[in-house]
Amino acid sequence: MAFSLRTVLPRSIARPIPRIAPIALHRRYSSAGASAVAADNGEQPFFPDEPRAPIVKTQIPGPESQKAIERLSKVFDTRSLNMMTNYQRSYGNYIADLDGNVLLDVYAQIASIPVGYNNPSLLLAATSPEMASAIINRPALGNFPQHDWADILETGILSVAPKGLGQVFTAQAGSDANELAYKAAFMWKRQHQRGGSHIEFTDHEISSAMTNQSPGAPQLSILSFKSAFHGRLFGSLSTTRSKPIHKLDIPAFDWPQAPFPALKYPLDQFAAENAAEEQRCLEETERLIKEWHNPPAAVVVEPIQSEGGDNHASPNFFRGLRELTKKHDILFIVDEVQTGVGATGKFWAHEHWGLSSPPDMVTFSKKAQTAGYYYGNNELRPNKAYRQFNTWMGDPARAILFRAIVQEIKRLNLVENTAVTGDYLYNGLAQLAKKYPNEIQNLRGQGQGTFIAWDSGRRDEVLKRGKSVGINIGGSGEKAVRLRPMLVFQKHHADILLESLEKIFKS
Amino acid sequence: MAFSLRTVLPRSIARPIPRIAPIALHRRYSSAGASAVAADNGEQPFFPDEPRAPIVKTQIPGPESQKAIERLSKVFDTRSLNMMTNYQRSYGNYIADLDGNVLLDVYAQIASIPVGYNNPSLLLAATSPEMASAIINRPALGNFPQHDWADILETGILSVAPKGLGQVFTAQAGSDANELAYKAAFMWKRQHQRGGSHIEFTDHEISSAMTNQSPGAPQLSILSFKSAFHGRLFGSLSTTRSKPIHKLDIPAFDWPQAPFPALKYPLDQFAAENAAEEQRCLEETERLIKEWHNPPAAVVVEPIQSEGGDNHASPNFFRGLRELTKKHDILFIVDEVQTGVGATGKFWAHEHWGLSSPPDMVTFSKKAQTAGYYYGNNELRPNKAYRQFNTWMGDPARAILFRAIVQEIKRLNLVENTAVTGDYLYNGLAQLAKKYPNEIQNLRGQGQGTFIAWDSGRRDEVLKRGKSVGINIGGSGEKAVRLRPMLVFQKHHADILLESLEKIFKS
Repeated sequence: MAFSLRTVLPRSIARPIPRIAPIALHRRYSSAGASAVAADNGEQPFFPDEPRAPIVKTQIPGPESQKAIERLSKVFDTRSLNMMTNYQRSYGNYIADLDGNVLLDVYAQIASIPVGYNNPSLLLAATSPEMASAIINRPALGNFPQHDWADILETGILSVAPKGLGQVFTAQAGSDANELAYKAAFMWKRQHQRGGSHIEFTDHEISSAMTNQSPGAPQLSILSFKSAFHGRLFGSLSTTRSKPIHKLDIPAFDWPQAPFPALKYPLDQFAAENAAEEQRCLEETERLIKEWHNPPAAVVVEPIQSEGGDNHASPNFFRGLRELTKKHDILFIVDEVQTGVGATGKFWAHEHWGLSSPPDMVTFSKKAQTAGYYYGNNELRPNKAYRQFNTWMGDPARAILFRAIVQEIKRLNLVENTAVTGDYLYNGLAQLAKKYPNEIQNLRGQGQGTFIAWDSGRRDEVLKRGKSVGINIGGSGEKAVRLRPMLVFQKHHADILLESLEKIFKS
Repeated sequence: MAFSLRTVLPRSIARPIPRIAPIALHRRYSSAGASAVAADNGEQPFFPDEPRAPIVKTQIPGPESQKAIERLSKVFDTRSLNMMTNYQRSYGNYIADLDGNVLLDVYAQIASIPVGYNNPSLLLAATSPEMASAIINRPALGNFPQHDWADILETGILSVAPKGLGQVFTAQAGSDANELAYKAAFMWKRQHQRGGSHIEFTDHEISSAMTNQSPGAPQLSILSFKSAFHGRLFGSLSTTRSKPIHKLDIPAFDWPQAPFPALKYPLDQFAAENAAEEQRCLEETERLIKEWHNPPAAVVVEPIQSEGGDNHASPNFFRGLRELTKKHDILFIVDEVQTGVGATGKFWAHEHWGLSSPPDMVTFSKKAQTAGYYYGNNELRPNKAYRQFNTWMGDPARAILFRAIVQEIKRLNLVENTAVTGDYLYNGLAQLAKKYPNEIQNLRGQGQGTFIAWDSGRRDEVLKRGKSVGINIGGSGEKAVRLRPMLVFQKHHADILLESLEKIFKS
């Protein structure tokens, strides 16, 4: 018999695509919680069919999860597993497991879920014909971009570009986004040292590059800060200084680390000391820029050090960094992988700083669900084709999703929601801190949306007990509890979180 | 007015998903080519509605493409752009642009499209509810894996695992897959040097790791080969030795490169010389393993050096490498990013070698449309959680797609198709080489499926003229024309390719 796709497939192709119906699915949860349609405070919920409250049925992991973990362990390392998740049953701010537990999620896949699980608007984007094409016809973007790539960028990634940075190089995730930005910085710096983009490489540069030796592979560096986290590939890990477990046994470049300000809290009581501390850090940064034996081509910094313990610095500090980089003719890279896309109550956290000129590059990932670096200066396009290049150079499927995320953020005004909800939550935590001063120390993140953290003397226990009272919560650094709710986190969720935390503190 | 998602969205959600109908779309092309339904040689085509022949309507880029390129250039570097592509109009082995040109694609997104554009089976997977969930609920796989992750792995990625390598660490793309494998190698090596997984890190190791200094950041290396390509992030680029443009101005680790055999063709005329050359390379590899000042933790090698010019070596050479790594207690990493998933007429190219024991790790990406490294030895799971970790650790959406690709490969017996078609194509090229000895030099890839290449004294011109005769074809290294057709490339496509090449050679 003649065999062909046509004879096998048309019926299947014609089959209507089964719909996911998260709202119907999750209506079940609604009845398990409170019965009111709106939240108690009169706020209109973004997800009316969200659970009204967490549901805790078993210890976590429960028996069904344990079975699944055991099976997965045979083929996949599960020692960092936190919760075996059923995403089909997760909805909005709530994450579900296999044992009927449904937790309020203020960790959100390490700060990477922007607008709620099974968000209906994203579902529409995910089931669109253009998404299907992007999934099955993945292009090598540098060689064979899809004809509507400019449109996808302009209506998505670039529609929220930081001011002054109207171009983008797309990537896969935060770690390679940073490394690509570093590469752009090195190429830019060497071009300057060489005397311009028209100067050709010397034979010695070409031959030494091929043996990984200077001058072709230059003895330049990226300056980062103590406790910074910029990723875990070899270049990004060389700028990461968060925890030994991230770095041990991995070869690293001999690159400099400057001290990051260790601010004292509450800020208003330590204004002078903190200003002096920031000045000290700026001075040491400048010294390293001038004196480090492998001179920096760029400084990279997070607006709030996230993995490293939620360490903040003032706008003044960051303005100082921007000035230092200008003064010494090196680039200023702002790593907004965790802070970007609305979490701090601005779309980009560096908008809080009031810079007189934009950063040279801003990297993004996580809540964007795609990654890359923004830039504005044409000099950051290397002087020849194929210098900054790889096969996929990002993923249009994920860029299409980010466009839908951006539209959802704008439609629901979620950056403002996060600013307002963040203030509400911060005030609630400040009250709790007064009541339980041993539990909430160094509360930080005021005016930074929901990007809030505090130190705890029994941090790991707090995180663990969180599950038993229905909240999924994460840590950062050695002792910080970090909140990373989604942008659809509202005041009624904050109330649940505050009540749950108090239960833990009382216990 | 009360505002909620429910009031805004239900009608849209209920809307049936519009179908992509590539077959109907492409029927138009059929009439433009030859009229016979089956190929002339009686072969049953996998894509009966594929164009029968290329269609060249304009110079490439044509006027519509030029407009689109100009627009994209404003926000995205387009200097490496090869063809502005319309993927909705591409089908099977044929790639379309905006000007009505439809080319036979034997480059396939730098060897990364496995089973044809708009493959209907992949379309079904891409429009499935589980794909939609994977797109909108992207997990942090190390912390919150989806409950069916083991199932997705076992029925997909792991169902085609190389013999002996039943575990996987998933990644985003080839470059980070290799770097994660390198990290696993370094952790393994240091653990051995330390005396076992139970030995704790010393304080000195911990403090020195945080300043990027030895012993915490050890002075170890990965040995790679001259002309190798393993990616372009900082660690992988340090093992890449393909072209200066890939490496210039980027800092690199001081890691060793061994010579890769420079075989002479035709192989049967230079058997003794080639064997001596391979022996020389093995000896030099061993010398570097023993003497390089930053000792290697692993050797990484491509089964066929791809970007570096399509350089082949014999199974004997690779068996020798495997023995050397065992002898010196270091790991053997096979980079199958470009060779894997069927292209050489075996699912994994290293199956051609007849190794007595499997490689320690095999990395994959490209045609898999996802990435990672396979391993078998439990010692390659680092001794503590979070040592090998990142936020996303891959992408279930792409893993689900790979499962569909694997099913399609099995259903249509595409590895065997590629072996058979490859032999047919190789023989046709060998005939052409006799007729045009100046055009096809050093023809290579016999018995390696469609992974075929030759050297050309006017390579860039041949690639360019390819478009004018209707074929999209790529190069590698300095002078190689490389063929990277999809696994659905059949004899009737080979006939078109051979005819088109002859047109170029005659001109």
